[in-house]
Amino acid sequence: MSNILNLDQKKGKAATGAADTALATLQALVNDDMIRVNAIILKLMESPVALIPQLAGHLIASGGKRIRPLLTLASARLVNYEGERHCKLAACVEFIHTATLLHDDVVDESGLRRGKEAANAIWGNKPPVLVGDFLFSRAFGLMVDDGSLRVLRILSNASSVIAEGEVMQLLTTHDTDTSEEAYMDVINAKTAELFAAACEVSGVVAERPESEIEALRSFGKNLGIAFQLVDDALDYAAHEAVLGKTVGDDFREGKITLPIILAFRRGSEEERKFWKRVMEDDSQKEEDMAKATALLVRHKAISDTVKRANHYGDLARDALAIFPASEAKTALLGIVDFCVERAY
Amino acid sequence: MSNILNLDQKKGKAATGAADTALATLQALVNDDMIRVNAIILKLMESPVALIPQLAGHLIASGGKRIRPLLTLASARLVNYEGERHCKLAACVEFIHTATLLHDDVVDESGLRRGKEAANAIWGNKPPVLVGDFLFSRAFGLMVDDGSLRVLRILSNASSVIAEGEVMQLLTTHDTDTSEEAYMDVINAKTAELFAAACEVSGVVAERPESEIEALRSFGKNLGIAFQLVDDALDYAAHEAVLGKTVGDDFREGKITLPIILAFRRGSEEERKFWKRVMEDDSQKEEDMAKATALLVRHKAISDTVKRANHYGDLARDALAIFPASEAKTALLGIVDFCVERAY
Repeated sequence: MSNILNLDQKKGKAATGAADTALATLQALVNDDMIRVNAIILKLMESPVALIPQLAGHLIASGGKRIRPLLTLASARLVNYEGERHCKLAACVEFIHTATLLHDDVVDESGLRRGKEAANAIWGNKPPVLVGDFLFSRAFGLMVDDGSLRVLRILSNASSVIAEGEVMQLLTTHDTDTSEEAYMDVINAKTAELFAAACEVSGVVAERPESEIEALRSFGKNLGIAFQLVDDALDYAAHEAVLGKTVGDDFREGKITLPIILAFRRGSEEERKFWKRVMEDDSQKEEDMAKATALLVRHKAISDTVKRANHYGDLARDALAIFPASEAKTALLGIVDFCVERAY
Repeated sequence: MSNILNLDQKKGKAATGAADTALATLQALVNDDMIRVNAIILKLMESPVALIPQLAGHLIASGGKRIRPLLTLASARLVNYEGERHCKLAACVEFIHTATLLHDDVVDESGLRRGKEAANAIWGNKPPVLVGDFLFSRAFGLMVDDGSLRVLRILSNASSVIAEGEVMQLLTTHDTDTSEEAYMDVINAKTAELFAAACEVSGVVAERPESEIEALRSFGKNLGIAFQLVDDALDYAAHEAVLGKTVGDDFREGKITLPIILAFRRGSEEERKFWKRVMEDDSQKEEDMAKATALLVRHKAISDTVKRANHYGDLARDALAIFPASEAKTALLGIVDFCVERAY
């Protein structure tokens, strides 16, 4: 808890060494597989239309953590899968995510994505939409090559749930009446569903018992929720360099995330008037971000968002309890720490 | 040929009764199946997120001809298919098309789509992109339910080819150096591929010999090319009410279609300067559309575009030659007439 309180006091402190180490451990564990995944990704975005690999490559090569394909690879390792299908599926998962980012950039008009300029800032709105469609279709083509209808069902369902979540998020934007429950529905759909699918498919291709497949899915789901909660907390707390996006993006876009929901509910009538003006009316002034941050700190809205994340992190850890100790299990547990602790 | 010449003289004359009758004949033939397709479509766009059926319904209910699902249904009839899978697949094909339209509207910023306001004019750019993604994912989900990997391969491939075609089209926009060949690549990808897939899948589910599946594919492919050529001619020749989009949309957007390519090539140095200014420089004046139309007429650019369409219409007709006479065959041949003759 002292760490959580620290968050508000030392806004934007870089991730600790421990969290970074957890990510590095996981990356090292599946490094050989990830090299294969990268080769599949490069091959999959090939097209005689040069703009496609150019634009997709801009995003894919720009140093994302690739946490979703890492989860697919590590889950496969956890259940001792010995085939090669998990590499293809990890590439599919990353493609679906990349397509979502491309379409999300059109939507959010955010200036930064992973620390680089967003695709739409360079190419305008049109190409990213179309290249996103291309990547998405290619991902499906690769799944079809894999040949498992169950995997296809998991990933096509995840895709439609993600789109549903993105629309829900649009509807809660600028709406300070958004409940914590509605917010949870949004992040469940837009983020946690793909984390869940990324882990689940490895259990499926390894033909593990349903209880293990379900455990992998639950691990991914809860990890995804924790990840997004921390992401939303960091939007008010991180250095730009750490998060790879501009601090205050959500605020400027009027996106209603849990920190805002908590501060709004816990606030005075006058504070709620402030939140309504800055989040609903599109009339933000220069000094509003500082005032917003002060209110978030006063009401422990950021630290309590991280506290919620810790809860889901605990659920994720316990989902893995049925698996025997292994290097992969340690690495996956470490990634829970990474997702939650990058907030500090 | 006299009809083709008429086109330039009586710009925008409504489709003749004969072409309309061909469409009505086809619609009547598969009416029962189409009722099933409509029910599947309605079910497929259900979501607790009300904006999704609302926005998708706006487009789907706005009276498109549904030519692609009609082709799937009629092709199934042609090969005496007796199951029910063709209705599901017809709905998938329409969903893929609808998703493309939604994303295309974002891209084109056209004010009219099928005679109604485009979705982005009502909802902005964001929801149509996301609802398009939702429809697209749902279509894949439905295909997965169908369970045929071959069908999945055909339709996922069509989707990525369409996206590739849309990007290619973007690259030729404003570029008067675009060759007829590059233009053909674009319409092959963005239009003809889905027409081809729409017909092909019916041969696949009916488990017909490869030669028939290939004939269905060839029929759809060539029909799609003819359809798009006429569409591009009509952009300079139709009444708004006939086409359901604004005449001159392509012109205003600087979209390089075959009429422009022909007029540019056949034109004088001075005319080419004109085309470069209006198509490349985004500096169109009020009177430019009238001058452009006059140049297109002078160089027979619109009528020769329709002539090219007739060529592909002939190929489509001949692709069907291997099938014995039937009501379905007559209806499909009629639809070739419809696609080509709606120009007159």
